[in-house]
Amino acid sequence: MNYRAPLRDMRFVLHEVFDVVQHCHRLGHGLDGETIDGILEQGARFAREVVAPLNRQGDEQGCRLEQGRVLTPEGFAQAYRQYVEQGWASMTGPVEYEGQGLPQMVSASFLEMIMGASLSFRIYSGLTESAVLALHRHGSDALKRDYLGKLVSGQWTGTMCLTEPQAGTDLALLRTRARPEPDGSYRISGSKIFISGGDQDLSENIVHLVLARLPDAPAGVRGISLFLVPKFEPDAHGAPGARNTVECGALEHKMGIKGAATCVMHFDDARGWLVGEANQGLACMFTMMNDARFQVGLQGLGIAEVAFQGGLAYARERLQSRSLAGPVAPERAADPIISHPDVRRMLLTQKTLVEGCRLLAACAARELDLEQGDPDPQRREAAGRRAALLIPIVKAFLTDVGQEVSSLAVQVHGGHGYIREWGMEQLMRDSRITQLYEGTNGIQALDLIRRKLMADGGEQLQRLIQELREDAAACRDPALEEMARVVGQRLEQWRSLTGHVLEVCRADPQEIGAVSVDFLAYSGYVLLAALWLRAAGRASAALARGPDDRAFYRAKLQAADFYWRRVLPRASAHHEALLGGAQCLMAMNEDHFDF
Amino acid sequence: MNYRAPLRDMRFVLHEVFDVVQHCHRLGHGLDGETIDGILEQGARFAREVVAPLNRQGDEQGCRLEQGRVLTPEGFAQAYRQYVEQGWASMTGPVEYEGQGLPQMVSASFLEMIMGASLSFRIYSGLTESAVLALHRHGSDALKRDYLGKLVSGQWTGTMCLTEPQAGTDLALLRTRARPEPDGSYRISGSKIFISGGDQDLSENIVHLVLARLPDAPAGVRGISLFLVPKFEPDAHGAPGARNTVECGALEHKMGIKGAATCVMHFDDARGWLVGEANQGLACMFTMMNDARFQVGLQGLGIAEVAFQGGLAYARERLQSRSLAGPVAPERAADPIISHPDVRRMLLTQKTLVEGCRLLAACAARELDLEQGDPDPQRREAAGRRAALLIPIVKAFLTDVGQEVSSLAVQVHGGHGYIREWGMEQLMRDSRITQLYEGTNGIQALDLIRRKLMADGGEQLQRLIQELREDAAACRDPALEEMARVVGQRLEQWRSLTGHVLEVCRADPQEIGAVSVDFLAYSGYVLLAALWLRAAGRASAALARGPDDRAFYRAKLQAADFYWRRVLPRASAHHEALLGGAQCLMAMNEDHFDF
Repeated sequence: MNYRAPLRDMRFVLHEVFDVVQHCHRLGHGLDGETIDGILEQGARFAREVVAPLNRQGDEQGCRLEQGRVLTPEGFAQAYRQYVEQGWASMTGPVEYEGQGLPQMVSASFLEMIMGASLSFRIYSGLTESAVLALHRHGSDALKRDYLGKLVSGQWTGTMCLTEPQAGTDLALLRTRARPEPDGSYRISGSKIFISGGDQDLSENIVHLVLARLPDAPAGVRGISLFLVPKFEPDAHGAPGARNTVECGALEHKMGIKGAATCVMHFDDARGWLVGEANQGLACMFTMMNDARFQVGLQGLGIAEVAFQGGLAYARERLQSRSLAGPVAPERAADPIISHPDVRRMLLTQKTLVEGCRLLAACAARELDLEQGDPDPQRREAAGRRAALLIPIVKAFLTDVGQEVSSLAVQVHGGHGYIREWGMEQLMRDSRITQLYEGTNGIQALDLIRRKLMADGGEQLQRLIQELREDAAACRDPALEEMARVVGQRLEQWRSLTGHVLEVCRADPQEIGAVSVDFLAYSGYVLLAALWLRAAGRASAALARGPDDRAFYRAKLQAADFYWRRVLPRASAHHEALLGGAQCLMAMNEDHFDF
Repeated sequence: MNYRAPLRDMRFVLHEVFDVVQHCHRLGHGLDGETIDGILEQGARFAREVVAPLNRQGDEQGCRLEQGRVLTPEGFAQAYRQYVEQGWASMTGPVEYEGQGLPQMVSASFLEMIMGASLSFRIYSGLTESAVLALHRHGSDALKRDYLGKLVSGQWTGTMCLTEPQAGTDLALLRTRARPEPDGSYRISGSKIFISGGDQDLSENIVHLVLARLPDAPAGVRGISLFLVPKFEPDAHGAPGARNTVECGALEHKMGIKGAATCVMHFDDARGWLVGEANQGLACMFTMMNDARFQVGLQGLGIAEVAFQGGLAYARERLQSRSLAGPVAPERAADPIISHPDVRRMLLTQKTLVEGCRLLAACAARELDLEQGDPDPQRREAAGRRAALLIPIVKAFLTDVGQEVSSLAVQVHGGHGYIREWGMEQLMRDSRITQLYEGTNGIQALDLIRRKLMADGGEQLQRLIQELREDAAACRDPALEEMARVVGQRLEQWRSLTGHVLEVCRADPQEIGAVSVDFLAYSGYVLLAALWLRAAGRASAALARGPDDRAFYRAKLQAADFYWRRVLPRASAHHEALLGGAQCLMAMNEDHFDF
């Protein structure tokens, strides 16, 4: 499986739809367009040449646990070294710790590339960035001094130790204990599961961020604190020193991401330090949550892109049957299957979902950047609210898309899609995790309704819808008249559906869970439609402007046309289904589901 | 993963919805209800005790190729011996060859069980039944005498050798050659791929049915003939004799069904015999096609059932978070997740798809039986046409359901769904093949439009719709009033959509492939709704009749209610999407899909 970063589309999204240069300017970054494009080109080369070749063998070899040490697949350690040396690890890190502080709108494109090239490889570095965020925001000066520089450079990596066998979604149930020591440190004891990169042979040290309970902690989520537990305590020179009593007890056997070590971690009176206030662990976690969930959304997007590329390459090469309208390649034994409408339906579904999701990701990245870096505190706050609203949609919708698009890649390949050598089935297996971790997609949907919609009476969402409606109404492009009308109708429907959803959820709390997944999916499809309309407007304007890149812009318009005609109708199903209400879900006695 | 056959629901479908006893009577079978139930109970025990325990280790161990011989996973050979000894292999075989000639309506229930217990195990016997069918219909007396008895008993197994690397969907491209010998036999040369059970250590002989070209054959599908090529030629006593020059060259590495040997087969001047007329190979294949595609549909159903069971068991046991409406198990640390509406949405989607598909499978089995065995030739012909119409829907819809329901089982398990030990991810991997083999689901949809709908101007489908409309209109049950109205509207929509589809497909052949997949899915959801209405009618009548099994019937009504409110709306999306037309699929130049 080759990987070729979709640089043209990335430039379209960044420059032509979202004006990334002005965005950087607003954030106080001196990045110009050429520098950004240069970063993306170098990133594309790194993804193609260094990361992509690891993916298949990572899946074949998997990880091994030998005498308490995790060994990653061949080539991973070397590639990680290059990743650190070339500065990719520090892209988004804070500048005061030698990070490059790049905006997410730029870094997201690079991340999409390496996630598409090898999700397993990416997983080792992903949580380091979350750990940096948490430590930077909540860590003491001493912890920052000892750990942040090494984490930002990627020399050391981070993990997030949340889940326990009995505590997944429900962190209130977690049992890991922290006992204070006279010197201000703590002793942590307990077992954590599903710890990505809990141990590995890539980095010289591993810094675990661990949720645990203090002796006097209140029950439930209000009694959870966050601790930093290093694999090796830094010595006087800041180098890895004494080995801590934290160990990988087992590796999970998984459906996919086999190149990523998913560890059971045992903390046996391991030495750690409190991060943030006691009993405020969950709040500290929330700092990272938007970021981590955004990243998982990007994983779905990255895999979807590579799956689209795989399906497209096969559809162009594979000769099978004649076109329904007569031979298109009469000189060959059969026509390439890309000439068959149903194969085109699959490819265009892939393409329009992928490119639509790339627009949505950029949209969310912008808000995340503005939340952090806008000079105006009011705009920071507004961006924070918008980001909080978008994140659950991005996480769930993009990862659902990742699974669908990789499944379509298998389908385009026919029986060959089922064979490992073609690489498509691995994408299905790898992407399946993204719908589960960092909060299942069902949890994202609950978050959207409860924490986002109900918390502000739908104000933030209605504001977004209103902006999108104004956009659609302002569209004067005759080539887009029909699309603008349909998108406008959908936005109006979204507005009214949002009101309805709020109403029923206030009246009956079961409705929250009854409408949530369909409402999120509905929102995703309509949001994509609005973004596609915007993209189509830019493409149409570019076509009117001049002769450059006409084929690209025409394809954009054709893709937009496909999206609203053939993908957007899914919104109708979600709309109708959620109106079905909670009663038909709750009526059945749980003993009567089977007989 | 345990497997418990859904005997109560199977009895409901067979006896209460489809009156299997009368059906058997009409076919001239003397089966009474108790005998049928007895067969199902024994089958359930066999599936649970003998087959289900093989499934996980079959996935872990896979098959091996050693010195040209395929070794199946531990336990497979022994279980297959029991399968033959207990007479399961001969259930549907013709009575004149010591088969039991059971109707498909009965055998389908057993097959669903073993497919759910282990698809990999089932695959070894599945194609034997197809081979029996082809040989029985088209084979010479000598071939029947030498092979049929052994195949019917299961002592020998059969394969179907169609696919070649360059010829999958498009059999016109196949290259395997057959050269006539003076003694009336043929020498077959060529390579076939994706041959299930091409070699194995379960049966003492393997009988390959091979598509190949005669020297003077016309090009394309009209020049394909069917040959029987045994692994061992029967000796004078009918026992396996001389080893033929057919060999397994490699085993495929697959996403799933790892317990099933998927072989590359090399025929090197192998001795074979013509089955049926020269150049009529495709017609002979068509004999088996309905049956084989129906079987693959059942595979989807079988896996969906076991996935539902897995999801349900976990949802009852797993404690996580409190119910949105307040604790339901205050004495425990958290509530079972089955109390959460979104988990119920997943479980009820599984349940209603599975049970609806079981109704549809029985519906198709009835027609297949009547086509073979109705005493009235006109009714045989009518049943044949109805079966031909239903089969592509059954194959594609039930296998799509198998994939969706197993993916939902993963989702209900959260992160644990991704871990091999829980068994859910294997179901996703195993079921994925069913959407690809025996004609991809896209091919099923083309078959539905081209060979079924357009061939008779929609007559057969309109007749089915009309019958279902009359059924729905005749529903006088006040408890079902709303459902009957909604289903009636959908059936009317289906009627008018069918007319529209025919019209556009006649006007533009590209529309055939543009509407096909959405039209098939639409038809599947509406057909299921009509069957759910019928089932709900029976349940409601049973509740009115007396006190037996009230919980079962009430759950049926609740499930029906869920189906039309929350699943049937998907038909709207397919309806709207297919109206989007072919133009938006065909407009893009194939070079412009990416940049």
